[in-house]
Amino acid sequence: MAHVVTGGAGFIACNLIPRLLERGITVYALDNLVRGRREFLDSFMDKGRLRFLSIDCSDKAALRRAFEQVTREEAITDVWHLAANSDIPAGVADPTVDLKDTFLTTFATLVVMAEFEVRRIHFASSSAIYGDHSDVPISENTAPCFPISNYGAMKLASEAQISAAVETFLDQANIFRFPNVVGPPATHGVIIDFIGKLRATPDVLDVLGNGAQQKSYLHVEDLISAMLFIADQAQEPRTVFNIGPEDFGVTVRFIAETVRDAVAPGSEIRFGEGDRGWVGDVPRFRYDCKQLAALGWRPNLTSEGAVRRAVADIVRQELGR
Amino acid sequence: MAHVVTGGAGFIACNLIPRLLERGITVYALDNLVRGRREFLDSFMDKGRLRFLSIDCSDKAALRRAFEQVTREEAITDVWHLAANSDIPAGVADPTVDLKDTFLTTFATLVVMAEFEVRRIHFASSSAIYGDHSDVPISENTAPCFPISNYGAMKLASEAQISAAVETFLDQANIFRFPNVVGPPATHGVIIDFIGKLRATPDVLDVLGNGAQQKSYLHVEDLISAMLFIADQAQEPRTVFNIGPEDFGVTVRFIAETVRDAVAPGSEIRFGEGDRGWVGDVPRFRYDCKQLAALGWRPNLTSEGAVRRAVADIVRQELGR
Repeated sequence: MAHVVTGGAGFIACNLIPRLLERGITVYALDNLVRGRREFLDSFMDKGRLRFLSIDCSDKAALRRAFEQVTREEAITDVWHLAANSDIPAGVADPTVDLKDTFLTTFATLVVMAEFEVRRIHFASSSAIYGDHSDVPISENTAPCFPISNYGAMKLASEAQISAAVETFLDQANIFRFPNVVGPPATHGVIIDFIGKLRATPDVLDVLGNGAQQKSYLHVEDLISAMLFIADQAQEPRTVFNIGPEDFGVTVRFIAETVRDAVAPGSEIRFGEGDRGWVGDVPRFRYDCKQLAALGWRPNLTSEGAVRRAVADIVRQELGR
Repeated sequence: MAHVVTGGAGFIACNLIPRLLERGITVYALDNLVRGRREFLDSFMDKGRLRFLSIDCSDKAALRRAFEQVTREEAITDVWHLAANSDIPAGVADPTVDLKDTFLTTFATLVVMAEFEVRRIHFASSSAIYGDHSDVPISENTAPCFPISNYGAMKLASEAQISAAVETFLDQANIFRFPNVVGPPATHGVIIDFIGKLRATPDVLDVLGNGAQQKSYLHVEDLISAMLFIADQAQEPRTVFNIGPEDFGVTVRFIAETVRDAVAPGSEIRFGEGDRGWVGDVPRFRYDCKQLAALGWRPNLTSEGAVRRAVADIVRQELGR
């Protein structure tokens, strides 16, 4: 029994795959290594049956060859579709980035799953599909969805295409909508950005925006725990779950201070103007995760706890201390 | 002042364009003539300044050349983006049909609008974005959206990409979500199908499904009236309106009988099995259009009235009587 993980050398995959291997599942990790890193997988290559295939998941022909190769050895039962652009500002600057990496990866994955009769998909969607709802807590029933980034748009497009595929060939689709996820191994995001800035100029940390942006943060360990819990429990052909802490989130100021205290205590933090870091950034954000709580799962860490732990993890990763 | 209409030789466009011409607007109709027909525009070529350009709107380079050609003569202020696949079963059989014709037309239109700084879009979306909500009346706030056809998925993807574009360059996006639209000139749909079947075999009309499917039908004249009303009234940068009758709709049985009575009275109607005509078909459907009613617009015709009038119109078109 094999599972395919697209975006298999990315941040989420590197945390998911060891948990799948522990369960005795053979994992085929597919990644074009544009944002993912092959070496992320090294530490658990010997923990179970893990194969890595270097392919671009938006390329149907390449994906088809990969599925042929896998199915010569064993049947694929599940796809964890994690491949996507993860650089939201890059996708705002050039919409073809999210078209190709966030949506056409989904499109090609579904086409090839249909051909190989793989009937279960688990999809990494995003709170970005909702757009800006200001202070209204966002539940799975919040509407209309007006994404404000091409990333959010192409995640919503992916959900829609997956939903339609349930009508034709999929037995089950689990859609996970998560907010900012933090933890190791970090490749991008606010924590690693701040660490990089403080390495370059230890006296001062320049922050985009006024630092008042407040958002929910989920630690990647909690995310993986929730994804596996939902995949184990889900009964309906289509499920969608917000996964996140139910708190009010933490501010960019809190993150900046936590990183500063860990990396360069005493350095000055300088804030910019406005409540958005960049176009497509949602300034305030509250997440309603009651549906997942009702199913019996809650995160271990609050937003504050997730950020504190991720800062410690990533400082260790980046600075070796 | 020029407006561009994509899908400019299609069913909706042929009803919209004369109304734009009446207002003194120059119209550039763009169509690849796969489902649209050039001759639909003939009757009002002399009603105002109307130009037809034969291009595929999913082709960015071709679209760019068309915009260059138009803007040499006058500024484009608005795009009415109507280009899409209109054959839902064809899109279910081959997902690349709706990818290209329903979504990539939107993607290319937005890219080229950004380049030419055209900041107002009016988009023909669909009730198909909602998926199957059984007997629950569907309002703009119904969620989650789980489309059950690739057509519905790619309309939702288009809405999402338009929404994101409001964040970067659009001043205004009006999204019209409409159910089944009937009226002349018919190129596809249940009425023309039934007329075609009765021409082939006047003694019997075979109907897919058990005839109990019940849906809202909107007459195209009411649709155009609503689209223009919303475009005139809308203030917000993003608006979304359900447009439709607020009744419970009519059954396929009613449509079959109305066509039979007009074309071949006394012929036998034979129904099939099940409550869906084809994969991707929503079996029952109730539409909540209170938001548009609150703005001050209601349709002239009920679903029953729309079907009766459309049958008369299309019998005249097809049989000349």
